[in-house]
Amino acid sequence: MEAEVFDALERIVGSEHIIVDKETLHSYECDGLSVYCSLPTCVVLPASTEEVMAIMALCHQHAIAVVARGAGTGLSAGALPIEGGIVLSLARFNRILNIHKESGLAVVQPGVRNLAISESASDCGLYYAPDPSSQIACSIGGNVAENAGGVHCLKYGLTVHNIVSLVVVTAQGERLSVGDKSADIAGFDFLALLTGSEGMLAIVTEITVKLLPVPELARVIVAGFDTVENAANAVNDIISQGIIPAGLEMMDSYAIQAAEDFAHAGYPKEAQALLLCELDGNADDVNHQLTITQSILDKAGATSLRVSSNDAERALMWKGRKSAFPAVGRLSPDYYCMDGTIPRRQLAPVLAETHRLSEYFGLRVANVFHAGDGNLHPLILFDANVPGELEKTEAFGAEILRVCVEAGGCITGEHGVGLEKIEQMYHQFTDAELTQFHRVKAAFDPDSLLNPGKGIPTPKHCQEHTVMENQQLAGGNPNG
Amino acid sequence: MEAEVFDALERIVGSEHIIVDKETLHSYECDGLSVYCSLPTCVVLPASTEEVMAIMALCHQHAIAVVARGAGTGLSAGALPIEGGIVLSLARFNRILNIHKESGLAVVQPGVRNLAISESASDCGLYYAPDPSSQIACSIGGNVAENAGGVHCLKYGLTVHNIVSLVVVTAQGERLSVGDKSADIAGFDFLALLTGSEGMLAIVTEITVKLLPVPELARVIVAGFDTVENAANAVNDIISQGIIPAGLEMMDSYAIQAAEDFAHAGYPKEAQALLLCELDGNADDVNHQLTITQSILDKAGATSLRVSSNDAERALMWKGRKSAFPAVGRLSPDYYCMDGTIPRRQLAPVLAETHRLSEYFGLRVANVFHAGDGNLHPLILFDANVPGELEKTEAFGAEILRVCVEAGGCITGEHGVGLEKIEQMYHQFTDAELTQFHRVKAAFDPDSLLNPGKGIPTPKHCQEHTVMENQQLAGGNPNG
Repeated sequence: MEAEVFDALERIVGSEHIIVDKETLHSYECDGLSVYCSLPTCVVLPASTEEVMAIMALCHQHAIAVVARGAGTGLSAGALPIEGGIVLSLARFNRILNIHKESGLAVVQPGVRNLAISESASDCGLYYAPDPSSQIACSIGGNVAENAGGVHCLKYGLTVHNIVSLVVVTAQGERLSVGDKSADIAGFDFLALLTGSEGMLAIVTEITVKLLPVPELARVIVAGFDTVENAANAVNDIISQGIIPAGLEMMDSYAIQAAEDFAHAGYPKEAQALLLCELDGNADDVNHQLTITQSILDKAGATSLRVSSNDAERALMWKGRKSAFPAVGRLSPDYYCMDGTIPRRQLAPVLAETHRLSEYFGLRVANVFHAGDGNLHPLILFDANVPGELEKTEAFGAEILRVCVEAGGCITGEHGVGLEKIEQMYHQFTDAELTQFHRVKAAFDPDSLLNPGKGIPTPKHCQEHTVMENQQLAGGNPNG
Repeated sequence: MEAEVFDALERIVGSEHIIVDKETLHSYECDGLSVYCSLPTCVVLPASTEEVMAIMALCHQHAIAVVARGAGTGLSAGALPIEGGIVLSLARFNRILNIHKESGLAVVQPGVRNLAISESASDCGLYYAPDPSSQIACSIGGNVAENAGGVHCLKYGLTVHNIVSLVVVTAQGERLSVGDKSADIAGFDFLALLTGSEGMLAIVTEITVKLLPVPELARVIVAGFDTVENAANAVNDIISQGIIPAGLEMMDSYAIQAAEDFAHAGYPKEAQALLLCELDGNADDVNHQLTITQSILDKAGATSLRVSSNDAERALMWKGRKSAFPAVGRLSPDYYCMDGTIPRRQLAPVLAETHRLSEYFGLRVANVFHAGDGNLHPLILFDANVPGELEKTEAFGAEILRVCVEAGGCITGEHGVGLEKIEQMYHQFTDAELTQFHRVKAAFDPDSLLNPGKGIPTPKHCQEHTVMENQQLAGGNPNG
């Protein structure tokens, strides 16, 4: 980077808010998917929308790539730095600006931790519903970038359903207000377009989130099953009864054992599948639904049933599920977390196919997932020190995503595409659709400076076109 | 239009599916906002996605403007034909292709009437939730174009929340699949972007909608109030109790009297404000909520309270509300229906300001609106035959929208911007925001052939730029 640009960045944020020394830069070389690493030129830590505007205007003028970064807990290498580019960390945007009890809205900065919003709102009897497993650490800005879900998104929706407006800065350094407090908005719906856009369209500097009243009562049922099929059928039975659980989670054999050994949540270790079903609302409704749900689980062949009798017990039951990733991590030197989405009714066949693939590749797989909305998280267990095992794991992962797409699903639930799943986008979209994504990207970021190379692959026809052009330039004949 | 183009259109859809004679064309000269009229060159009625692709490719090649049209019930002149352009009617896309009970999804063509979906799904015990007042006539494609709401959108959301995927044809004649059956999607969220985009980004040719189980029980409360303020406060009280009514509607004096004279729904004609509150769900929950809601309404000062005791009575109570527009129409030679959205807590002050403006302009106003989500529909009563009264009405309407924006709201709820509210977009958005809308429009439709001139005005700085250029071309000096 030219000294002139560096000086200008220093003038914008102050020299104490730029990181350049190699050692500190290494903390920014990857996000939660640490198989991909890359060092940025520097990390800039602005603290106001105006500073972000100035940084973006400068980077635009000098054609410098910018990767926005929240807490770095992402799982698809979306926050992987670009060589020669800068990382724009939103860590200093860490204030809750306003909580308005009457309207149930809070204005927060993007660096605020997800859980901190609910903690601050609890005085008003309110909370913020989306709860990704990483909610202790992950930032609300990162949640917006990835359209994060969580255990409760079955009933309460994804991030996009729980925010009403954003302030963003464009690649050219302009400030835009997006969305509105009212139900509908005039103009195009940029709120949904920007949510989940993985830092490729604009930088979010302020978020207005919806808060909900803390439910009067919440109870969890833990049900064990002899077969994955029975558990998957129970999921469909509950939902087709018109019951919408606050959370409806499923784990299979390896995951149950690992979670129980780790958290001592009282899970039945002999079960082949486990359902956690949370019901919340006013006490009468919850108790009514609890009776119906227990009877459905019984009929579906549950081999064990436990209901939380107080909040401490409920928290313990969830602790097993929420710590399942690190718990599974103890079974194996490494694990790779996938994130595919399928229509709920395809749960049983897709899980069966995953187990068949597990045998084919000779790699164990533990499934921990949001059953209610068909968002799978297969964890492939492997050892990166065994030559070839990482490659085999990646091939297995790609196969799982192919199976998801064939079942009418999608290659990502809540973790995003990032760099990790960019190849799988070809399974999901036609060339015309990828081209249209690029056109919209260019409508926001014509020079492709915001998180370039992530999220959307080059359409195949363009790739071929480039190859042909290169061959022609080299005097070759593509037709032989 | 050149004969060559006309011949090509005829080859695509067959001569029996092109309308050219002036008399028939007049049925297409406007939509539900009949103050704006314009004749298209012809109306084309394709019946398949492939035909729409061929039409768009042809129009793209010859730079012909295309206005897509559903049932023509829109209220913002969104389907107003463009002079020299064609109207692409989706009336022949009138089939429900598939209703899948287990997944609760239906695949429908855009020309299907909104109500016809629920009628067809009733055999499976399912229905389609969004119910605009025009649901007997309006098409689901038009609902997507305008992101239509309705009486039940408070609980069940707008159109965008009740669809999962679209098939669309671009301005260049390419087919795109948008959205997905699963909860989240990879790539940018084009489903929300296209929903409510008023025919400016693409032509919708297939829609997959969500169906919900018909609730076990639904009951309506009709409550009369002495003052608009009391009724508005009651709305806030109900919702802050955590009750989400299926519908929560409000009418004021003129509207109550007109509706009662028309529908004989048993409304208290002396009331200054009326609330209709529908509760639905399982019988126990509904009866429980009914008790709470009645007590809230009592405390809020309701002067009368009636609860429907059966479905016939419930239908009659709604009939008054649903026929309020034509009923008010009988009070005056003409009326103009506005559509602004405000934060719910601003209901009382905004209605007070509306009444003040009514006196200032000397024009009566009847308010009929979705109170629960702050979507106002003031009906301004006027006589177009009185010179100057239409202009005064338009000025009054613009003032109402200005008040909505100042209250933190929006210039449109569910009727769209169309041609009607294009000037008001300047109240809502900055030049940078309008420019970004145009950039996204151009990313889909670079030659501006889809519904040009609607929805988004030219940013002011561009207008000034054009004026300056013209002055300079004419040898003038803008600086004097």
